[in-house]
Amino acid sequence: MPVPTPHLRVDLDRLRHNVRRAADHAAAARVALRPHVKTHKSIEIARLQLVSGARGITVATVGEAEAFARLGCTDVFIAYPVWVDDDRAARLRDLAEIARVAVGVDSAQGAANTGRRLGGTGIEVLVEIDSGHHRTGVAPELAGVVAQAARRAGLPVRGVFTFPGHGYAPGAVAEVAAAEAHSLRVARRSVEATGLPVRVVSGGSTPTLAASLSGPRAYGDDDDTAEVELRPGVYVFGDAQQWELGTCSPDDIALTARATVVSVAGGRVVLDTGSKVLGADRASYASGFGRLMHRPDARILSLSEHHAVVDAGPGRAPRLGEQLDVVPNHACAAVNLADELWVEEAGGLRPWPVTARGLNS
Amino acid sequence: MPVPTPHLRVDLDRLRHNVRRAADHAAAARVALRPHVKTHKSIEIARLQLVSGARGITVATVGEAEAFARLGCTDVFIAYPVWVDDDRAARLRDLAEIARVAVGVDSAQGAANTGRRLGGTGIEVLVEIDSGHHRTGVAPELAGVVAQAARRAGLPVRGVFTFPGHGYAPGAVAEVAAAEAHSLRVARRSVEATGLPVRVVSGGSTPTLAASLSGPRAYGDDDDTAEVELRPGVYVFGDAQQWELGTCSPDDIALTARATVVSVAGGRVVLDTGSKVLGADRASYASGFGRLMHRPDARILSLSEHHAVVDAGPGRAPRLGEQLDVVPNHACAAVNLADELWVEEAGGLRPWPVTARGLNS
Repeated sequence: MPVPTPHLRVDLDRLRHNVRRAADHAAAARVALRPHVKTHKSIEIARLQLVSGARGITVATVGEAEAFARLGCTDVFIAYPVWVDDDRAARLRDLAEIARVAVGVDSAQGAANTGRRLGGTGIEVLVEIDSGHHRTGVAPELAGVVAQAARRAGLPVRGVFTFPGHGYAPGAVAEVAAAEAHSLRVARRSVEATGLPVRVVSGGSTPTLAASLSGPRAYGDDDDTAEVELRPGVYVFGDAQQWELGTCSPDDIALTARATVVSVAGGRVVLDTGSKVLGADRASYASGFGRLMHRPDARILSLSEHHAVVDAGPGRAPRLGEQLDVVPNHACAAVNLADELWVEEAGGLRPWPVTARGLNS
Repeated sequence: MPVPTPHLRVDLDRLRHNVRRAADHAAAARVALRPHVKTHKSIEIARLQLVSGARGITVATVGEAEAFARLGCTDVFIAYPVWVDDDRAARLRDLAEIARVAVGVDSAQGAANTGRRLGGTGIEVLVEIDSGHHRTGVAPELAGVVAQAARRAGLPVRGVFTFPGHGYAPGAVAEVAAAEAHSLRVARRSVEATGLPVRVVSGGSTPTLAASLSGPRAYGDDDDTAEVELRPGVYVFGDAQQWELGTCSPDDIALTARATVVSVAGGRVVLDTGSKVLGADRASYASGFGRLMHRPDARILSLSEHHAVVDAGPGRAPRLGEQLDVVPNHACAAVNLADELWVEEAGGLRPWPVTARGLNS
């Protein structure tokens, strides 16, 4: 039975290639990978990453951590300044029974709160610093203050981490990767100045991945006391954002939305892949609301919930009822909208469940 | 047990009030309501609408139609130019066994295809026209051509419909509602000129709802041969878009996302309601990525998957760990991300399943 459009498809060869390539580069650079599974939310893909040598997984929420830990991912870093209330404390205590767990903290108050509720459980913390993205994270030079607060609250401090999200801008990667490395070095020194060791220095994103791997120990000082860890997410699939940033080629992209042309009535080509399938993400640098895989000059001019209005570009006009493959702007957003990913394999399509779909709390 | 943040909440009193008010106004105007359930995707809310007098429901996809029909909604209009392939033909035939079904068509070719696969099933069609939104829909004066093609293909033609989506712009409502009414009159005459009767003239949206109800029979000619039908969706909840367009007041808004302040580390207030909970919709007129219910001067400056960076406006600064209620920009997008809506009632929260979550094909 065919799968009706719109639906998400995974090119398994490309996915495996993307996972393997990053793993090989990380191994060559003596850097640990702890991929962010919020991108795919899928146990099948997490297993591919772990088999290829990933140190563990990164998640954004306690719900994601629970889902993956129950399926055997036993080393989970919640890279988020989780506010630990009574409910989350109970869930995290249960989680620590079945996995090695670390969470983020980015303030002395947050560390004190986390420690009061989770001290003695073995759950470790990493101090989040702001390396220029200006979202969460303490200033790098204050990382030691937060680390000391965590230590006083009874929490083992694993190290420091950041997310260089400001690398999502054209031409920004080299500068952002350098700023990230500098910030992490400052943060590391700030923590070590308090007498606490830093065992892990963690950063990374898909745009900055190649830059971060280009030199050995890019984040750390030239010794072996701290492990450098990178947490890219989107690299497994690629997406239109990465394509347009130049951090992947269209030939690398492993995730598409299969669409049907549902209308040409007004001289416009309208596809059935709307924002409820692709997500509505549109970065300031994006050329539209996604791209067409086999029509690089096409642009998605507007998007509503169940419609994508397309300028198909030069060449034959798409016909009513024809199917096309759309590359979402942001893979993470598209995947979180789907209950399954359809994996192309000889003989048909196989569903992979989106294990942690919607587990965003 | 408390429900962890972020999660969606429904204010049941406001929801009931919104449903009742629209039903009363429609009854007074002698107009039928066929609410678009893509907004809430929830059987509990569809039942409230039907009990209050709605003629039936509108859906966007065959998947939504299946879900609601199986739960007893027996009059379903798929207001979309569905491309009927073999798979969808089989599903629609099954659907027609348990519900009265109509689908959209917007071209002679589409009508011929639909008729070839669904002729004789009792499934009716409405001709979609473009009343100025420039998405799907044939030009109003060509509606008769499409209707004739449908009739020739063995499909009963119920009437004409449109979606005045260009009403989603500041100050546009009066002009758009008038253009919509004019386009529907042109389309109706175009169909009737071919000798086919028009039994239903269907339009409407939440922004244009009040304007469309302001005069009796606003869409039709001054006779009783055609029923006027409106298909608003968002009116049940309201959202930040409607608030900012002036088509609802904040006191009407029945859907919010409960958020926790997870970071103030950088002097920024960061909430845990990101795009995976709110959706990433941001219309050109929007002041940000959502609003705060009880802080009308606050703005959501940026949104990532699990973070909303907020300018909290004047007054006391929100504290770390504090909970706030966020009004999503677009209710339909937020609901489709959630597996349940939490309904506030005396004694706690009750989950309503999002029946048709993700059923977007």
